[in-house]
Amino acid sequence: MRLTIGVDIGGTKVAAGVVDVDGRILEKVKHPTPADGDALADVVCDIVEELAARHPRGAIGGVGVGMAGFVDENRSTVIFAPNLDLCGEPLRDRIRRRIDLPVVIENDANAAAWGEVRFGAGRGVDHVVCVTLGTGIGGGIIVNGQLFRGRYGAGAEIGHYRVVADGRPCGCGNRGCWEKYASGRALVAEARTLARTAPAHAERLLKLAGGDPDLIQGHHITQAALDGDAAALECFATIGDWVGQGLADLAAILDPERFVIGGGVCEAGEILLRPIRESFARHVTGRDVRPLADIRVAELGSAAGIVGAGDLVRL
Amino acid sequence: MRLTIGVDIGGTKVAAGVVDVDGRILEKVKHPTPADGDALADVVCDIVEELAARHPRGAIGGVGVGMAGFVDENRSTVIFAPNLDLCGEPLRDRIRRRIDLPVVIENDANAAAWGEVRFGAGRGVDHVVCVTLGTGIGGGIIVNGQLFRGRYGAGAEIGHYRVVADGRPCGCGNRGCWEKYASGRALVAEARTLARTAPAHAERLLKLAGGDPDLIQGHHITQAALDGDAAALECFATIGDWVGQGLADLAAILDPERFVIGGGVCEAGEILLRPIRESFARHVTGRDVRPLADIRVAELGSAAGIVGAGDLVRL
Amino acid sequence: MRLTIGVDIGGTKVAAGVVDVDGRILEKVKHPTPADGDALADVVCDIVEELAARHPRGAIGGVGVGMAGFVDENRSTVIFAPNLDLCGEPLRDRIRRRIDLPVVIENDANAAAWGEVRFGAGRGVDHVVCVTLGTGIGGGIIVNGQLFRGRYGAGAEIGHYRVVADGRPCGCGNRGCWEKYASGRALVAEARTLARTAPAHAERLLKLAGGDPDLIQGHHITQAALDGDAAALECFATIGDWVGQGLADLAAILDPERFVIGGGVCEAGEILLRPIRESFARHVTGRDVRPLADIRVAELGSAAGIVGAGDLVRL
Amino acid sequence: MRLTIGVDIGGTKVAAGVVDVDGRILEKVKHPTPADGDALADVVCDIVEELAARHPRGAIGGVGVGMAGFVDENRSTVIFAPNLDLCGEPLRDRIRRRIDLPVVIENDANAAAWGEVRFGAGRGVDHVVCVTLGTGIGGGIIVNGQLFRGRYGAGAEIGHYRVVADGRPCGCGNRGCWEKYASGRALVAEARTLARTAPAHAERLLKLAGGDPDLIQGHHITQAALDGDAAALECFATIGDWVGQGLADLAAILDPERFVIGGGVCEAGEILLRPIRESFARHVTGRDVRPLADIRVAELGSAAGIVGAGDLVRL
Repeated sequence: MRLTIGVDIGGTKVAAGVVDVDGRILEKVKHPTPADGDALADVVCDIVEELAARHPRGAIGGVGVGMAGFVDENRSTVIFAPNLDLCGEPLRDRIRRRIDLPVVIENDANAAAWGEVRFGAGRGVDHVVCVTLGTGIGGGIIVNGQLFRGRYGAGAEIGHYRVVADGRPCGCGNRGCWEKYASGRALVAEARTLARTAPAHAERLLKLAGGDPDLIQGHHITQAALDGDAAALECFATIGDWVGQGLADLAAILDPERFVIGGGVCEAGEILLRPIRESFARHVTGRDVRPLADIRVAELGSAAGIVGAGDLVRL
Repeated sequence: MRLTIGVDIGGTKVAAGVVDVDGRILEKVKHPTPADGDALADVVCDIVEELAARHPRGAIGGVGVGMAGFVDENRSTVIFAPNLDLCGEPLRDRIRRRIDLPVVIENDANAAAWGEVRFGAGRGVDHVVCVTLGTGIGGGIIVNGQLFRGRYGAGAEIGHYRVVADGRPCGCGNRGCWEKYASGRALVAEARTLARTAPAHAERLLKLAGGDPDLIQGHHITQAALDGDAAALECFATIGDWVGQGLADLAAILDPERFVIGGGVCEAGEILLRPIRESFARHVTGRDVRPLADIRVAELGSAAGIVGAGDLVRL
Repeated sequence: MRLTIGVDIGGTKVAAGVVDVDGRILEKVKHPTPADGDALADVVCDIVEELAARHPRGAIGGVGVGMAGFVDENRSTVIFAPNLDLCGEPLRDRIRRRIDLPVVIENDANAAAWGEVRFGAGRGVDHVVCVTLGTGIGGGIIVNGQLFRGRYGAGAEIGHYRVVADGRPCGCGNRGCWEKYASGRALVAEARTLARTAPAHAERLLKLAGGDPDLIQGHHITQAALDGDAAALECFATIGDWVGQGLADLAAILDPERFVIGGGVCEAGEILLRPIRESFARHVTGRDVRPLADIRVAELGSAAGIVGAGDLVRL
Repeated sequence: MRLTIGVDIGGTKVAAGVVDVDGRILEKVKHPTPADGDALADVVCDIVEELAARHPRGAIGGVGVGMAGFVDENRSTVIFAPNLDLCGEPLRDRIRRRIDLPVVIENDANAAAWGEVRFGAGRGVDHVVCVTLGTGIGGGIIVNGQLFRGRYGAGAEIGHYRVVADGRPCGCGNRGCWEKYASGRALVAEARTLARTAPAHAERLLKLAGGDPDLIQGHHITQAALDGDAAALECFATIGDWVGQGLADLAAILDPERFVIGGGVCEAGEILLRPIRESFARHVTGRDVRPLADIRVAELGSAAGIVGAGDLVRL
């Protein structure tokens, strides 16, 4: 199976690419995500046929699909995908009705983690936890070189382990979930709160956002922080502290060799990494007697999902 | 390897037994734990030779040793065992100087979890998390039917993932660790606090302890709760709630099929299990769309460590 | 000053009444709250003239006005009233341009507390803390028989002391404010969360709300709780626990003789009061050596604001 | 009453002085605190007679006594003083059997607060909250220029309002009390924890304490911080943050014009004050629309108790 197709189904677009055995994307296409979940299989099939048509018959050996949501332990049925309003959708079987190739469905954070471990910042390491800081927190866990999925395919939902017993309400129905404190969106919320309650202190952030606290975006905070703005640095310090606390808890349970941190906020580089490392070192149990996991930034960016999904169908 | 020897090194005594392939302990001995960590290998060897001498030459196929502390990824060196004041102790090699058999060293909670999964409440299930509620909280994780150890052998320290960001101080140097809220000792602390601040309400507990809050023990609380005492039931409800919250977080990360709850407090049976189940169901993410892990009481009691350690050397 | 006029400016209507020296409302009128804050003084003047016209010249001795927001220490200027979009409004002077009577402006929760202390559940007690559980939590503090206002008129904002260090976001810009956990709205939020994450358990609540979690209202929860529904009782127990914890903190600081609890949720009576009392007794410092404040339900209902405002102008 | 005697009963010594109308201590004596609470009145009387004998008959107009514990609303009976093992002790009456002068008993933190407000950092301000950071946190509240005592004399126990719902255990039987996070002892606990879990980072602190984390004292941390040591500054930042959070909560309830911060840790000056001010400004409700209390360091040091007690008997 020299070439495969990796598909990354997002909230607004379906991106896909032909992936080779070295994790390179040879070519790439994007289609809008259909409003109707029922049409999803058709869109995936269209994309696969479009990409496959450009290659000799038989050159494509399989299709890996990553998407947000719970996927069952057979990597076949979408148990629940709130953004796409899918519940119990037999996506693999629907695709295979049109496409006569091996197909696997995978949670998108798992797919991205697999991409990073095979070809990115986790290469060559057998125990890795990938943490993607975006709207929420996506997680992927590699144990003994294999993707860890849990009994029912619902493992590695690390964004929803709780860090504050009675904390901020989360869309999942719980309170205090890690992603309410440590995601890219939490960074933005922190900055907006600061701008509302201390506008003078957050002057630079407000200026970048045209004066409206609610228009502050992640890239404004990154830009202000890179310029040395105290308020923006404070926001990164707060979020980095929470990220590090979470890594410490995950280390107590999973004892990985490496954490790979992804997501757009990583563009701030050491401004984010330093408080993460300090907080991790301060909160990890047994810190003086155990080898500490190292913490690196993801390397594949938004391509990790396609690359990982494409590779997972080889296994 | 029909018979093996399982050794369970505790803070006050070293217990060992001859274990058969069905997890039965054929005979058992106990020696005091030596005050000096250096003498530990000798005590283990003495015990092994004592037990082996009662069987035909060659009948014993190996020795598994469980003990509290971090054990390295080769199941060979004790990285750190605070109770025994050991640090970097090459215990396996020391034992093998006298005993010419396969030897493995394992964390005691891991050994006990393995015992429960092979022969107890986790039998036949491939994804299990064992939680032993004692002085602290011991954890053992089984993934795909195998004991999960983490990269450096320090995984499954679930008692030290934190449930309150700035909570009660823990002996590990952190604050807010789960075991400060949900262990057997936390149950006792809860009852003593109640007896100090509300002596009238805790009258029955105080009476069982001879009137001194500081003499309240776990078995007093269990006894009072079984008699229907409101204060004791309140203590179990509080601890059960924290246990269930922790299981919910572990499910988000590990997605097991079953939780096995062990430790002396389980003698309270449903008095403990009911609040655990309620709290778990209330706090687990995605509760309405995912299969929920079931929660059972451990079956092997204090023998789990010997049985599990004895079996681990077969692998 | 035998008769006065008390005015209660709410978000949707301005209610006012003629109040006698025994706290009785002789007659009452209501007008819609003007959309424009500038028109507010005129509406108040219209109401006052309307009521005064029904009495002999000179019968009305003064006007007391209660409204949500910060009022300055001279009981004259509205520092900030977010709902009415007022900031630095010299409301007393504007009213006095048309009405030649003594006028005082007061925070509405302070006015209501004063009403309860003079003529309701706090009668005859010199150290009282009134806690009104509504959309937020309103507070009024009576010290040595006098209304406590703080240095700048901004005291007794008890709904915004924080109970969770990094808790739920509050409209005031902070996180973890008491009113996010213990108000009438918090009760509703609790029930809606329960209905979303455990629809089977919350079946009765959902039925009362026509099947939509977001349509559950306070009176549904009260009704279900009075019928013995377990889910509704659980919601009251959770909120009551938080209320009691807050009262314990306030007792540590203010050491009152009595707490008076008001707001619509009090219609649940003992269903709410019992968990409040239990939680208060469990969390108050020095509980075994100090006299404990008693906890009562408010008696004047929604009239407390008019009665209290009317009486405050006599002082 | 030109001269009075102020007495400050501490855990190890009873200090007393003759105080004039300007709050000056004319002369001072110290005796050991008697092991037996019953002997306390005699020691106080001995001291009073000793000091009075040095002045013309009739020159001393009264005796004020401050001591840790709850004192009843008549400033007469010690309800509870755990350190001295007193409960229900009629201290004023016992003293008056020998001393024919007006006598008042007062909580020591209240006495010290009164001293600061009359003659120290709160001079000329009518709404003050004094916060003494020592082993615990002592509080004194001045409202309208008068000492606020609560209904039963047990008010202003601000060290035992709780900042973490299920936090660190406190000697009072509760959990999460402010003084477990923000007192001088909390500062020391922070430093010791840091030294245990990150000895390399805390090298300077450890060196000052002779290498033993448990020997780190407050003055070591102050010294290291003044030298610019990062670990010590981190400890002050952490404690200062908690102090400021507490002041914000107190401002929501009490709206003072000034906070006066006392206790030995204040020797660090701006190193402590800066994080307090930042945290206060960040957490106080309505920060943009209300006048903010200012925050000052106490001026009278350990003499505040004698001066304040001596002055209280004049009222």
